[in-house]
Amino acid sequence: MTGLRKQVFAGTFISSKSPQELNYLHNAVICVDGEGRIARVDKEPGSVSKLENTLKTLGWSASEVDIHVAQPGQFFFPGFIDSHVHAPQYPNVGIFGKTTLMEWLEKYTFPMESSLKDLDKARRVYTACVRRTLSHGTTTSAYYATIDVAATNLLADICLDIGQRALVGRVCMDNPTTCPSYYRDETAQESLERTRETIQHVRDIDPDFKLICPILTPRFAPSCSSEAMRGLADIQRQMDLPVQTHISENEGEIALVAQQFPESGSYAEVYDNHGLLTRRTILAHAVHLSEGEAALVAKRGSKVSHCPCSNSSLTSGAAKVRWMWDRGITVGLGTDMSGGYSPSVLEAARQAALVSRHVAMGVTDGAERERSKLTAEEVLYLGTRGGAEVVGLEDRVGGFEEGMEWDAQLIGLGQVDEDGMGGDSNVDVFGWETWEERMAKWLFNGDDRNVKKVWVRGRLVHER
Amino acid sequence: MTGLRKQVFAGTFISSKSPQELNYLHNAVICVDGEGRIARVDKEPGSVSKLENTLKTLGWSASEVDIHVAQPGQFFFPGFIDSHVHAPQYPNVGIFGKTTLMEWLEKYTFPMESSLKDLDKARRVYTACVRRTLSHGTTTSAYYATIDVAATNLLADICLDIGQRALVGRVCMDNPTTCPSYYRDETAQESLERTRETIQHVRDIDPDFKLICPILTPRFAPSCSSEAMRGLADIQRQMDLPVQTHISENEGEIALVAQQFPESGSYAEVYDNHGLLTRRTILAHAVHLSEGEAALVAKRGSKVSHCPCSNSSLTSGAAKVRWMWDRGITVGLGTDMSGGYSPSVLEAARQAALVSRHVAMGVTDGAERERSKLTAEEVLYLGTRGGAEVVGLEDRVGGFEEGMEWDAQLIGLGQVDEDGMGGDSNVDVFGWETWEERMAKWLFNGDDRNVKKVWVRGRLVHER
Repeated sequence: MTGLRKQVFAGTFISSKSPQELNYLHNAVICVDGEGRIARVDKEPGSVSKLENTLKTLGWSASEVDIHVAQPGQFFFPGFIDSHVHAPQYPNVGIFGKTTLMEWLEKYTFPMESSLKDLDKARRVYTACVRRTLSHGTTTSAYYATIDVAATNLLADICLDIGQRALVGRVCMDNPTTCPSYYRDETAQESLERTRETIQHVRDIDPDFKLICPILTPRFAPSCSSEAMRGLADIQRQMDLPVQTHISENEGEIALVAQQFPESGSYAEVYDNHGLLTRRTILAHAVHLSEGEAALVAKRGSKVSHCPCSNSSLTSGAAKVRWMWDRGITVGLGTDMSGGYSPSVLEAARQAALVSRHVAMGVTDGAERERSKLTAEEVLYLGTRGGAEVVGLEDRVGGFEEGMEWDAQLIGLGQVDEDGMGGDSNVDVFGWETWEERMAKWLFNGDDRNVKKVWVRGRLVHER
Repeated sequence: MTGLRKQVFAGTFISSKSPQELNYLHNAVICVDGEGRIARVDKEPGSVSKLENTLKTLGWSASEVDIHVAQPGQFFFPGFIDSHVHAPQYPNVGIFGKTTLMEWLEKYTFPMESSLKDLDKARRVYTACVRRTLSHGTTTSAYYATIDVAATNLLADICLDIGQRALVGRVCMDNPTTCPSYYRDETAQESLERTRETIQHVRDIDPDFKLICPILTPRFAPSCSSEAMRGLADIQRQMDLPVQTHISENEGEIALVAQQFPESGSYAEVYDNHGLLTRRTILAHAVHLSEGEAALVAKRGSKVSHCPCSNSSLTSGAAKVRWMWDRGITVGLGTDMSGGYSPSVLEAARQAALVSRHVAMGVTDGAERERSKLTAEEVLYLGTRGGAEVVGLEDRVGGFEEGMEWDAQLIGLGQVDEDGMGGDSNVDVFGWETWEERMAKWLFNGDDRNVKKVWVRGRLVHER
């Protein structure tokens, strides 16, 4: 990341002030230093005209600064955080038929993941996945890779090269009764050793984990031995690394966990008993958590990645975000490709809004029903600040505060001209809409065409 | 439509054989005459090479024929039918906040509709709506316009000019207790007279209703007097015109109907008692139909437009398509803009698949739960043949049989190259996918970028 020129961004900046409120800065200026860090936010409208003064106070000269000005109607928005995504499953997006979780794993998922030990195929698939998600404004991804060390290391290399911030996890799965013979770790020791190899690789390519961070990845309780889970928990404590796994996605899965770990009182307790319910743990799905499990997750400070596209597609259920928030659980969004069909966190946000309305339909109390629904502001929060907290990067990304890093997207919406001709995107702005209405239009009809530029740590990593 | 040259389309053609099955024709040929009618379907692979013979049997010479060849991987698909859409609400797509039906009408819908008595604004909005929906492959739309005669006539003119097949309805709403004072018909007589004016206008511009057909449009029972509904039913019988209205969308609405029409045993009976439950009636939503209502709707042969985007957005409920099919009701898809947020029938099909899984989540019996889910094939059927039946055009559009008219879209999916670079759409095909898998990928990640060309009655009306 050395060698970046200093940059000034000017125009409209929109980011979450709170889950309920977006903050709109117009005619504002953000200065980004050569390390990609936000050195100054000038919130006052018209600060562009005072830019020279601002640069002086930073000790920067105009000649060493590149200036990016958003066009009228365009705005800068924090890059999206995908807090749960399986890179090797990218070729399977949309392909799930009428399956539910366990059948889907056998039929579509394990064969595809296993095939990526072919590194040429892995390179093609991972490059497509990283480029496609970047084009949708995803600046940070928490990736599951596969069990293969070389392919997992390759995913880390590709993220570093293309410039997407990533948590990259080699998948651990060593339970011979639930994992297929062609795709599993032979022993718990193998799970742990191979995990250490991928951690070392990331240390070699990005010593301070500035862009890429290894993440411990027990696939989910049913596919892991107790020994493997305990070993991963040891590594977690020794190295203070993040952890990702799945929890309570599907009723059949929950029954399997109860059968497999009879000594634990719940799915969440299984992880807790193995030392995996940490402040740095990302739990994907959490569709069917009990009150007791929610209290335990909140107490441990583990985080939840809500994956609405996946939960609807695989008929897993409708996760209750408001209910989790009420219980003090931090929630972000995951595309969960390819349980989820879409590479886009904006689509996940849209589906989070819709799924929350399906949750509401099942609530009889009028006020509670109303509360169940998530607003546009709330689902955009989930996709940015919420996700940043889930992946443990809330001090660095998800907003536009001084000291944070410049992970951002420039969004442009389409304008309908006087003759009724729209632009080349699916968002048609007529001109009379408020900013709040424009954000709703973007949320519900936006796609990668509206993502004009994407930066990670100050580096321009995508444009169209 | 005179003056069209004869055309030959060659390549892959995909259309619904049944709700459960798509029919794939490869290396096939379809010949379309100067009236836009399908004169010949050569299903045998390799029929391109025998084209001269085929033309000879039709008495066509090669020089009078334009040939369109789909590129490898592209395919022709029947144009989509949007069986329920409010053109004047197009500027409001995505803007609904946390409202439900009745509040949404007051806050967003009536003000926007009313404002389109300004014909400059109406021209801009309707042009944008027709062009945008065509770009998504919608070749037929059943449009609600507004109460304004001139603006409704303008919508018919615009559809005819741009070339989208349409049913265009002037909205009737004359109940002063439920309609706002600034936006309603003063009397039932006014409702009927103004409706007749718009019918006459369509007769003037398209005498045989070849492309544009008037449709009787009592907004929904709560907004209409009994006199207006009976008068519309009289017109229906006299002129054998189609009818469109809403039914059983929202629980508050259902309660209002019960209160307003205490002499009718159900919402469906209200329409039946007023002579509006005909074979040519399109009922939008039908989320909360009772068994008795379903039996009545099936008996009368009225059709249902399923609007999943809208029903989720406005927290109306989850309509049960399989349940309606089981009861003999014909179902199609509606975008229901702007209760629905999207101009795309493909998005409606995608959401129909997802909503059917939310229906399934509420079913305890395992086999019934499984049956509730709609497959990719089924939701694509809903968007083509199902919709064609709903709008009464099943003999003319929705498939590729001889004698039908050429309402079609050419679909192209993106290819990922060997280096992992995808194309400029959101569908990434790696090359190893079966055709069934490609269709699933298109359904779940496709958008207007995949719609390369659109024809209605043989006329090219959109390309990119």
